[in-house]
Amino acid sequence: MQKVKLLISYDGTDYEGWQRQADGKVTVQETLEVALSRIFNTRMTVTASGRTDGGVHAEAQVVHFKAPKDPTKMKLVRALNSVLPDSVSVKKAWLAPEDFHAQKSAVQKTYRYLIHNSPIPDPLRRRYTAWIKKPLNIDKLNEITEPLLGEHDFKSFQTSGTVLKTTVRTIKAAKWAVAGENLVEFRITGTGFLKQMVRNIVGTAIYLYQNDLDALEMTRILAAKDRQIAKNTARPEGLRLESVEYPADLDNKCSEI
Amino acid sequence: MQKVKLLISYDGTDYEGWQRQADGKVTVQETLEVALSRIFNTRMTVTASGRTDGGVHAEAQVVHFKAPKDPTKMKLVRALNSVLPDSVSVKKAWLAPEDFHAQKSAVQKTYRYLIHNSPIPDPLRRRYTAWIKKPLNIDKLNEITEPLLGEHDFKSFQTSGTVLKTTVRTIKAAKWAVAGENLVEFRITGTGFLKQMVRNIVGTAIYLYQNDLDALEMTRILAAKDRQIAKNTARPEGLRLESVEYPADLDNKCSEI
Repeated sequence: MQKVKLLISYDGTDYEGWQRQADGKVTVQETLEVALSRIFNTRMTVTASGRTDGGVHAEAQVVHFKAPKDPTKMKLVRALNSVLPDSVSVKKAWLAPEDFHAQKSAVQKTYRYLIHNSPIPDPLRRRYTAWIKKPLNIDKLNEITEPLLGEHDFKSFQTSGTVLKTTVRTIKAAKWAVAGENLVEFRITGTGFLKQMVRNIVGTAIYLYQNDLDALEMTRILAAKDRQIAKNTARPEGLRLESVEYPADLDNKCSEI
Repeated sequence: MQKVKLLISYDGTDYEGWQRQADGKVTVQETLEVALSRIFNTRMTVTASGRTDGGVHAEAQVVHFKAPKDPTKMKLVRALNSVLPDSVSVKKAWLAPEDFHAQKSAVQKTYRYLIHNSPIPDPLRRRYTAWIKKPLNIDKLNEITEPLLGEHDFKSFQTSGTVLKTTVRTIKAAKWAVAGENLVEFRITGTGFLKQMVRNIVGTAIYLYQNDLDALEMTRILAAKDRQIAKNTARPEGLRLESVEYPADLDNKCSEI
């Protein structure tokens, strides 16, 4: 059966995260599987690059599935978007090689966390940003998160869940910046992320900043390898999965349909 | 009693527009009045610069009310935001002179209409933009709406409703522009707007553009003074009230609290 790679986007507001759940909660995975099942007239399952938590958005999540019928014989992107709710959309589709795996082949991911930083809440931003009243200082936040760069054991920033072989990950970039009027962003790129790792990093960084603590404290928290030592988990609505990268040779073997 | 002027913002998605309705539908006016009534411990009413339709947003709507207690003795903005749902927020409050009237004193308003212009729908923009698949041409749209500038009878662009003394209004600026990646905006400033006038103008302009019609047709529609001649009404979620202006002498008599 032909493997297909999809680039999808979703508004996580009304979903209990990516992963299909047994108790009937509405998830993005289930929503996409229902749409694919309608199109292919058979029970379909999909695999994503990774899970996202309830309320977390995706500008660009990658999934794969096996097509029981030739997917080039239909306008797949258009067909999917016509049956998906408007909270999920398919941006692109490719024929993928047999060895492509949305999760296992991924070499790098980027997340973006958006903060509305103003004394006054903004109704028009509340669904896609977290609100922080007191002014943030970009330079100080960058100093605070600097120790996270490189290869480390990020156990302190992992919310307990699945037992993993290793909690070592490599962070290639982590940068705070002004993203607009009263808008602050934190963009982080890494080889992989543990459960709620980005939200735990953001929540901890802001806690340290607001309590006049600095990069030394972040280094201490990282070294402790203990979730109890790290601080708050930032709210989900500020977070979005921005991109998932694959090796160039796999990208080259994908052909857009 | 002291008059108070408020600058408020709201996400219109879940509201049946601004104006309080008899049938119990949830409106922004009622929501704000309930919050004020809680704070002042008595039944409060507010007057806005104008109504907005169901689903239409406001970055900056202006309202006034009469305060039964000295509003300087409380942190009014903070108090209101603490009881309002997060879909409505108060950005500023002023003591206003007796002759200030949110609607009657207004001399100019600006609306902004946002369009996500891309073959693929965007779940993260769908609540605050209208989606148009086929590429729009900014220059052509600007040509099409050029005849609207100046003083005209805009009866062709008024959805029937309240009977008005006059349907003559003055448009001071009307401009289409690129507002971001795959994002097109139409910003219009005028002395006042008829019911659904901006949405009728946007819907008509896009219809004319998509049907290879031009400014001559817009001139003809304007001259007809007949709503049946004009075209579509653009969807509400793309529209937001961006600002309301008052005479400088009235602004000068307002003091922020």
